[in-house]
Amino acid sequence: MINYDLAVIGGGPAGYTAAELAGKRGLKTILFEKNALGGVCLNEGCIPAKTLLYSAKVYHSAKDSAKYGITCDQVSYDLSKIIARKNKVVRKLAAGIRAKMTEAQVEVVAGEAFVKIRENVDHERIEILCKEQVYFVKKLILCTGSETLIPPIPGLKETAFWTSREALDNKELPESLLIIGGGVIGIEFASFFNTLGTKVVVVEMLGEILYGMDRELSGLLRSELTKKGIAFHLNTRVVSVKNNQVEIEKAGEKQILETAQILLSAGRKPVTPGLKVNEFMQTDHPDIYACGDATGFSLLAHTAVREAEAAVEHILGNRRPMSYKAIPSVVYSLPEMAGVGKTEDVLQQEGVAYTVKKLPLSYSGRFVAENEQGNGVCKILEGEDGTILGVHILGNPASEIIVIAGIAIEKGMKAEELKAMVFPHPTVGEIIKETL
Amino acid sequence: MINYDLAVIGGGPAGYTAAELAGKRGLKTILFEKNALGGVCLNEGCIPAKTLLYSAKVYHSAKDSAKYGITCDQVSYDLSKIIARKNKVVRKLAAGIRAKMTEAQVEVVAGEAFVKIRENVDHERIEILCKEQVYFVKKLILCTGSETLIPPIPGLKETAFWTSREALDNKELPESLLIIGGGVIGIEFASFFNTLGTKVVVVEMLGEILYGMDRELSGLLRSELTKKGIAFHLNTRVVSVKNNQVEIEKAGEKQILETAQILLSAGRKPVTPGLKVNEFMQTDHPDIYACGDATGFSLLAHTAVREAEAAVEHILGNRRPMSYKAIPSVVYSLPEMAGVGKTEDVLQQEGVAYTVKKLPLSYSGRFVAENEQGNGVCKILEGEDGTILGVHILGNPASEIIVIAGIAIEKGMKAEELKAMVFPHPTVGEIIKETL
Repeated sequence: MINYDLAVIGGGPAGYTAAELAGKRGLKTILFEKNALGGVCLNEGCIPAKTLLYSAKVYHSAKDSAKYGITCDQVSYDLSKIIARKNKVVRKLAAGIRAKMTEAQVEVVAGEAFVKIRENVDHERIEILCKEQVYFVKKLILCTGSETLIPPIPGLKETAFWTSREALDNKELPESLLIIGGGVIGIEFASFFNTLGTKVVVVEMLGEILYGMDRELSGLLRSELTKKGIAFHLNTRVVSVKNNQVEIEKAGEKQILETAQILLSAGRKPVTPGLKVNEFMQTDHPDIYACGDATGFSLLAHTAVREAEAAVEHILGNRRPMSYKAIPSVVYSLPEMAGVGKTEDVLQQEGVAYTVKKLPLSYSGRFVAENEQGNGVCKILEGEDGTILGVHILGNPASEIIVIAGIAIEKGMKAEELKAMVFPHPTVGEIIKETL
Repeated sequence: MINYDLAVIGGGPAGYTAAELAGKRGLKTILFEKNALGGVCLNEGCIPAKTLLYSAKVYHSAKDSAKYGITCDQVSYDLSKIIARKNKVVRKLAAGIRAKMTEAQVEVVAGEAFVKIRENVDHERIEILCKEQVYFVKKLILCTGSETLIPPIPGLKETAFWTSREALDNKELPESLLIIGGGVIGIEFASFFNTLGTKVVVVEMLGEILYGMDRELSGLLRSELTKKGIAFHLNTRVVSVKNNQVEIEKAGEKQILETAQILLSAGRKPVTPGLKVNEFMQTDHPDIYACGDATGFSLLAHTAVREAEAAVEHILGNRRPMSYKAIPSVVYSLPEMAGVGKTEDVLQQEGVAYTVKKLPLSYSGRFVAENEQGNGVCKILEGEDGTILGVHILGNPASEIIVIAGIAIEKGMKAEELKAMVFPHPTVGEIIKETL
């Protein structure tokens, strides 16, 4: 029987961030992880996907190099090597997380943890059972993450479909791939497999891909990807699946699509359902917190990290509420797209007046220098008093520069204020200043 | 005889920014440029250099692609095509500037302008003479830029040496290149020519390259470039030049280096010397302003842009002083390096207490995913009260993410405040949050 100040269940971005911070700040901390440290993000999500996409980018850059005065004969790839490198990257980063836990004096237990609240005479007590060992803890943070949502499509269960997990570990390129779901995960895989030469079809139930992101830019990205050979079926429902045949329906009309492989990316859901939290990530039980995908609120690693920080700070007695005002959304497709703050759709729903400022990325000298024939757009939404409400960018490196806008939005900056900052020249990021 | 609210002399970043802003804000504006719109930056500086460096990056990426599971046989380049593309990029961006001038209703005059202050009975009057036409103007902004500094090295004048201008337009790769001056320009060219296969030697008078940037990171970049085959002679003076022989001296010892080509990058100096300005970029004459390299203060395009904005705002009656607190410095070598705020050297000179936080970029998952065997560092200097004083980054894409730190420094943010921002995952920019 051992006592801990804090137990964290789940070693993904929320869990390892919370554990590291708590350990560093002097809390006796224990972290339980039943699979692999790093969670979905590191082991079968963000990091593996971006590593594969970078190989695809290198491949594309070599094939496309003549535009830049370079000649490469016989460009080819070896998918098993690409996957092997991805695994090496994951191992390296996993070792980094383990080192951080050690450094922060966090005890890491490999195993599934079960929680029991025992009501004593004087107070409640949280007990954690893992591998027949009981741990008593003062505070608990649940970071149990999310899993792939499997919709009840007739025939799906009887089919050898992929989820992101299998897609990331596959060593032979399928001739064709049908992706069910045109969200971020679906579009990133579409971009990866398309770049390597697979014939990709994306089936999306809604009227546009990338639900929740700027609709106009999502449409532009879709056009870019269409030019590269990806086929999109919007407003289209998957009726049933049978072996390599997918029956779809659009506006009442049915059609059968043949495909060598199906990838399901219709969303994710919390592993532990029903966790409700306040702005300090506290659940109904004042000593139990929940962070990350477990809350089902914003299924993003960087949200998880920030939530974990807010939870640990609250445990330490600091009231710094979680803010969801400036959570960037990023699609690491080729080209990238990113957004932060509100979209036009949301502002219209909320009845907020706004003006749109928009510039092609070709106004950025560096973008022109580095993107022969590439399109891109920067769109900024401003409130009536000049406050920056939303920024949406299509074009590389949107992922890296969107945080500039995120800081401005989080801080409530007005356009004039951000425009007065000195952006180095020439950078693509300057487009934000230019657009303002 | 025509009257103008504002004349701008020089069509580089300072000049075209000032003219566009003034025109848009309703001032009757005229812009004089004796060479090419866009100035040195667009025509023979930043933009051409970054375009060439991008071709070098594509070449290097293809040659290096096996690390990412990609195979490219026979990677080669055609320097004349690389230069032709660079010229195309410059033309495209120059057309963009012309379009902006038209849109802002700025009158552009091609020709050298001469200024005369005529003292009338009641007030002074500024007259500008250009191509036998006289223009009367209320306000004047001098944006006359800078030129390559040619130090009095014996024998130099009699040698066919390059400045950046010639280096950017050369269509045949020299077998070897000796670069006099290891500042930003020298290092960028060193990186470009080295990547394409030229044997490069850099001779630097001081004890480290990249004077003014973080000394430790400059040393690390130098090691990276040394590994790639560039030779550096530090604390070394060029004694004389004779044809392809350069005599150098280090600690009293002389040596002769043979080289196929010499590139001189020993600094730049204002074309119009002696312009002193206040915080609104006003010279001694209240109606005459100076911006950009002309002031000799911070020879950077993005400084010029911000100075031009401050000057035009002042002319319009808005007192928004120029701030030099957060001007990023960027080296677009392979890998990139960037810094903003103060360096350790400066803080020590000023007697300011600070702490150093430092992390290798391999703490960033995205950096690991995209940089096989690449090194990088993020170094943050904090004041005693936690204020961020300086941020210095070695590794791609330092150029694009340094502005994040710039905003924090300009706004006087404390480490805790910037750390509370949500940085998208996985990005290299996260390293700033991680280091804090």
